[in-house]
Amino acid sequence: MEGQTRTDDIVRVPANGRERFYDSRGYGRPAGDALDLAPVEAAHLLYRGDLDSVDGQGFREYLSAVGGLAVRFFVYKDLRDRGFYCSPTREGWSDAVDPDDTADFLVYPRGKGPWDEVVEHRVHVVGERTTVAASQLDGGVLAVVDEESEITYLDTSRAPVDGATEHEPPTGVAATLLGDRVVAWEPPESLYEQGFYGQPLDRDDDAIQLSLVEAAYLAERGALDVQADDRDDGHAAVLARGREAEGDRFDRRLAVYTTLRDRGVVPKTGFKFGADFRTYAEVESVENLGHSELLVRVLPAGHAFAPRDLALDVRLAHGVRKEMMFALVDGAGDGADSPSIEWLRVQRLTP
Amino acid sequence: MEGQTRTDDIVRVPANGRERFYDSRGYGRPAGDALDLAPVEAAHLLYRGDLDSVDGQGFREYLSAVGGLAVRFFVYKDLRDRGFYCSPTREGWSDAVDPDDTADFLVYPRGKGPWDEVVEHRVHVVGERTTVAASQLDGGVLAVVDEESEITYLDTSRAPVDGATEHEPPTGVAATLLGDRVVAWEPPESLYEQGFYGQPLDRDDDAIQLSLVEAAYLAERGALDVQADDRDDGHAAVLARGREAEGDRFDRRLAVYTTLRDRGVVPKTGFKFGADFRTYAEVESVENLGHSELLVRVLPAGHAFAPRDLALDVRLAHGVRKEMMFALVDGAGDGADSPSIEWLRVQRLTP
Repeated sequence: MEGQTRTDDIVRVPANGRERFYDSRGYGRPAGDALDLAPVEAAHLLYRGDLDSVDGQGFREYLSAVGGLAVRFFVYKDLRDRGFYCSPTREGWSDAVDPDDTADFLVYPRGKGPWDEVVEHRVHVVGERTTVAASQLDGGVLAVVDEESEITYLDTSRAPVDGATEHEPPTGVAATLLGDRVVAWEPPESLYEQGFYGQPLDRDDDAIQLSLVEAAYLAERGALDVQADDRDDGHAAVLARGREAEGDRFDRRLAVYTTLRDRGVVPKTGFKFGADFRTYAEVESVENLGHSELLVRVLPAGHAFAPRDLALDVRLAHGVRKEMMFALVDGAGDGADSPSIEWLRVQRLTP
Repeated sequence: MEGQTRTDDIVRVPANGRERFYDSRGYGRPAGDALDLAPVEAAHLLYRGDLDSVDGQGFREYLSAVGGLAVRFFVYKDLRDRGFYCSPTREGWSDAVDPDDTADFLVYPRGKGPWDEVVEHRVHVVGERTTVAASQLDGGVLAVVDEESEITYLDTSRAPVDGATEHEPPTGVAATLLGDRVVAWEPPESLYEQGFYGQPLDRDDDAIQLSLVEAAYLAERGALDVQADDRDDGHAAVLARGREAEGDRFDRRLAVYTTLRDRGVVPKTGFKFGADFRTYAEVESVENLGHSELLVRVLPAGHAFAPRDLALDVRLAHGVRKEMMFALVDGAGDGADSPSIEWLRVQRLTP
């Protein structure tokens, strides 16, 4: 059987194409008894020997002739090999396709097909060298084809972050700004033991070292009274030092830190994991601390991910049994008020 | 006992300081019966209560007064807490100090001290926000103090990479350039099975997909005959496509790939680990493949590391039981000849 390309890159397969390829195997979109195929479907049928040619070309020629087809073909084939029916998203081909949807494929649950209108995954295909805007990652699956044509599936979701930690910080604890950190010399024990702010300078010492972001949060609430040589206002001095060290990133991190604390989640540094924070959803005391659940990387809302960096973060989080969460911050910065934060969770997926 | 700052930031402790602090505990440098201390040593003695004051200041005041002292103090204290004697590097204080040495501390083996002239570690101290030039990482230990004042020790070494893989690629295998990858449709089985080049398109198919870097390496050796629509010279077409996709990075990666293959090491993509390559030191056949031993990240020789990125790479490598290796490439690029590569291994260290 042979296909012919029509306008709009649609490959038309003549009468009884519908019966052979759609009704029993979920390819394409019926056009009477004929069938319209997207190029990736045509390539797959050529590869399998079910189609003899498209415009007189065999599989190898056709795959070379259609620009950008190879990467999509690898993913389509992989999903088919795993037993899924899937449809390229094309406006008008399915009621399930939102015109704004950036997905390349709709994947149906195993045993279902395009006639069922139940969608298991929306898959967005990229090569490993293509950056992906954070705004595109909103509940779909990212299929990254690496340079050796192996595929990594990353499941994305917009997920709220909530916790159950209850702790009221003390008030007016004296502290000193020391370079890019703060030390509270004699805070009440609860600051560290229940609040999990900072870390002790020594086992046998009352002094608690705080990060700039912890100190800024506490100082804003009147919990910390920071002495800084050159400033009357300790809170302002901490903010200034933070911005000096990290620029706008400090404001983004502080916005995320504040939101997490306000929701009962305790953020601590994620440095050892290459992240901004690791978080604990419920801290009663440091003595009875469980494992942290999330790794959080703070990014500006307009960030574009390099798939390799994404793979690195997700792989590491998986290896330490945590979930990778990206906090996308819009509008944080010196003088800006109430930035908005979206939470993007990314996990490895084996379809 | 009280100390006084002299010129050059040296804190002089008067007569019998030598006996109390140097002879028995390895602080400072004798000056007759008196003792000269570096500020970090003076701070530690103040912290312990062994010194009452320096220039009339107690520990808290002194730590605030000396710029940049806090971060070095945390590391010095941590090393002392772990049972090591260590000396700040100061020209003329020890025969073991090379004037070009960028280390902050010399750490002696446990039970040894400055009078023994045996050095266990040379420690370079940075805050997590300070970038570190690759050229500074040459055999010493990097102590990174994160924002919450926890310390991560990273051991660096310049290590050669060698393997024992023996495989002569075939000649003149036909292949097609397909976007940013290459497919050899009917190569001899040995290309993949023994050489571990590329990966099969399908279990039941002869076709092998190759990355651009694999294809460039093979094409240069006459092993691959690449067809590209728009070029007579398939090798040049692969190089051009690689540079189009990755710029100079492609040349650096190809230089590293080539050096590894030439040394009997098989590089495969490290995408799933966020690296450039994972490597196998000895491949006899894909059927009997062991685990890969190294993760390799390719960087320009002038690269400066953000400690957090370094922590991420090293942590991930550790988690998957591989070693993290950085290939620092000097002089690769279109038209440049024989780039030089230095191999930098970085591992977590618990002193």
